[in-house]
Amino acid sequence: MKRLRTFIALAAVPLVLAGCGDLSNSSMSTNSGSSKSGSTQLTGQSTDSDYEGVIQSGHYQVSKSRGVTNTQDSGNTYNLKSFENGMLNVSKKVFSTKKYVFQEGQYLSSTTVQNWLDRKSKSNTTGLNPTDNGSKSASKRNPIYIQALEEQDYMTQKNNKLSLGGVTIGIAVNSVDYYKKTQYGATYETKITQAAGEAYAKKAANTVLKRLRQKSALKNVPIVIAVYRQASNDSLVGGNFLAYSTNKAGSTSVSKWTPLNVKNYTFPLSSGQSSPNSNDASSFSNFKSQVENFFPNLSGVTAQAQYDGKSLAGMHVNITTQFYSQTEIISFTQYLQTTAQKYLPSGVPIDITVSSTDGIQSFLSRTKNEKKFTSHVFNSY
Amino acid sequence: MKRLRTFIALAAVPLVLAGCGDLSNSSMSTNSGSSKSGSTQLTGQSTDSDYEGVIQSGHYQVSKSRGVTNTQDSGNTYNLKSFENGMLNVSKKVFSTKKYVFQEGQYLSSTTVQNWLDRKSKSNTTGLNPTDNGSKSASKRNPIYIQALEEQDYMTQKNNKLSLGGVTIGIAVNSVDYYKKTQYGATYETKITQAAGEAYAKKAANTVLKRLRQKSALKNVPIVIAVYRQASNDSLVGGNFLAYSTNKAGSTSVSKWTPLNVKNYTFPLSSGQSSPNSNDASSFSNFKSQVENFFPNLSGVTAQAQYDGKSLAGMHVNITTQFYSQTEIISFTQYLQTTAQKYLPSGVPIDITVSSTDGIQSFLSRTKNEKKFTSHVFNSY
Repeated sequence: MKRLRTFIALAAVPLVLAGCGDLSNSSMSTNSGSSKSGSTQLTGQSTDSDYEGVIQSGHYQVSKSRGVTNTQDSGNTYNLKSFENGMLNVSKKVFSTKKYVFQEGQYLSSTTVQNWLDRKSKSNTTGLNPTDNGSKSASKRNPIYIQALEEQDYMTQKNNKLSLGGVTIGIAVNSVDYYKKTQYGATYETKITQAAGEAYAKKAANTVLKRLRQKSALKNVPIVIAVYRQASNDSLVGGNFLAYSTNKAGSTSVSKWTPLNVKNYTFPLSSGQSSPNSNDASSFSNFKSQVENFFPNLSGVTAQAQYDGKSLAGMHVNITTQFYSQTEIISFTQYLQTTAQKYLPSGVPIDITVSSTDGIQSFLSRTKNEKKFTSHVFNSY
Repeated sequence: MKRLRTFIALAAVPLVLAGCGDLSNSSMSTNSGSSKSGSTQLTGQSTDSDYEGVIQSGHYQVSKSRGVTNTQDSGNTYNLKSFENGMLNVSKKVFSTKKYVFQEGQYLSSTTVQNWLDRKSKSNTTGLNPTDNGSKSASKRNPIYIQALEEQDYMTQKNNKLSLGGVTIGIAVNSVDYYKKTQYGATYETKITQAAGEAYAKKAANTVLKRLRQKSALKNVPIVIAVYRQASNDSLVGGNFLAYSTNKAGSTSVSKWTPLNVKNYTFPLSSGQSSPNSNDASSFSNFKSQVENFFPNLSGVTAQAQYDGKSLAGMHVNITTQFYSQTEIISFTQYLQTTAQKYLPSGVPIDITVSSTDGIQSFLSRTKNEKKFTSHVFNSY
């Protein structure tokens, strides 16, 4: 449990989450009322496995490079969520959610990140991507390796103050670099192997670490750097993290990388493809065949599955179907609740989203340790 | 608890919902495997306050008038959900969810319902709407009073068989009848007062009851008829039920109507408008002002509130905002969890949907008796 839960605006937000009630250190709580200038508060914590976030003067403290971080979003919308969630997961290995508070990156500005993501050139000496060699040929040109770079800050609390306890930097490299030969022209592709992308990112990581150490605030904190490989635009899942390094306070070069073996799959698997555990894929197939013929009009049933090595880590199931009434949605959701419990793999978090052309209709989920799915039917008065 | 939970295809669906395990009467469970011809099963029950639905041979038993029932959906999409949920709520007053199973209407066909909803004419003698008097004038023409008519069946279980235990008929009358003077022409409106609509529907209810009694299966079951008034197309909530009658087995005319005083509001209230309890509206305003400035870009915060007389019955809160990262969504959802608990009215079911232009991002809900909101952030691998 975090020791200190508010700083100034104690009265602005209730801090009544079960089991998180230690407010004894709130000596800086001198003002009542909301949105006091300069006051710091936390968002509250949903579960022990989530970080709390930082609120300044009633507003969420957004990233200094806000907006730059989602340039990767253009082609495959799954990459952004996958990248940021993966960064949180890597961070949790180093910065415990019980001790650290999450803060959006405050040390790298939009301009800095944008320059770093651009090609190196006379006018942009800090560019982390290779110089333009003039070639338009897919195999001869220098591709854009690094597609996104994001900073996350992890804060500790001491004497009623938040101070920086560590930083995580995510570096996302392309598996495919999409480019145009002429403005508004056709899109061409330069493929980047995993090995080439990973090597390029690890080299860049050293440069990034050195640059960060030049900022006085970042000199003496641990800096985690994680390398992510983006999924291609036609993928129905996001990319995956390849490796991370924890660099202790003061170190200016990465000494050691820890490999990660997290991979994403879409179910049903395409023919010829295999997943780390064939039982999961066949469990899903059984579920799918029970569900897709429930209505006279066929339902579409797909899933994203994440594996850590050979072990299933979780599943997001998406069902789309045409409904004719609210009672059909209610009955379908009840049926899914029992059918999912019978057929889908146990012991991992699973959620199921049911949508029609009118948007989401209902939703079921089960955490890792639960047996029964909880469900919610979206409703309207 | 329902006594009998499966009929034939016992093996097809697990019946393991907590507290609902009485399978001793499953003597008709002679086949194993899924989707046996003619087998009947139930959907499973999410909570004691929901009806289970009927599955035939692995398929959901859809309404015989499927598709006709959503003609009311064209102008105001809230009416359909509001109408069907309201029918369920009225039914629950008469047919206990512990004793009855829900079945989509099986006695009125699409053709029948379509004919009843049309105007009375030489070629359609069963039309419940008035004959066309030829006038195109908003005040002189005969408007379409009855916009939708829906049947719901309530089944009882005895000796391992489902049999009809009662029927609920919903009759939806217009508050505004939208019409065109020429095909593809402008849309004109004939307003229908609540009194006129209600009177028309109650008269039609008598006709409907007589006709239903002519079907041998419906002769000797209780028939509930509920009268609903549609919201106009510009409303941000659906309409409301005005009255219902429970007609015992065999009765061929409605002897007594029970008035209903359920009304829907949108928060924030428009200027000059008032809700049955001003505390709820100001609670919502406080919540809204805490939430809308959380991000640098303003969030839109609205709610649908339902009242039963002077008492708040529940609230659906909708928040739309622009996000730049998954971590922003996570933090926002945590903040909502504490803020909603502090500011929104207690003791009623409330859910909160958070969306961006990319669709739903997160979701929070609290049942009537819970103190704390549960939350879910929609995610992707």
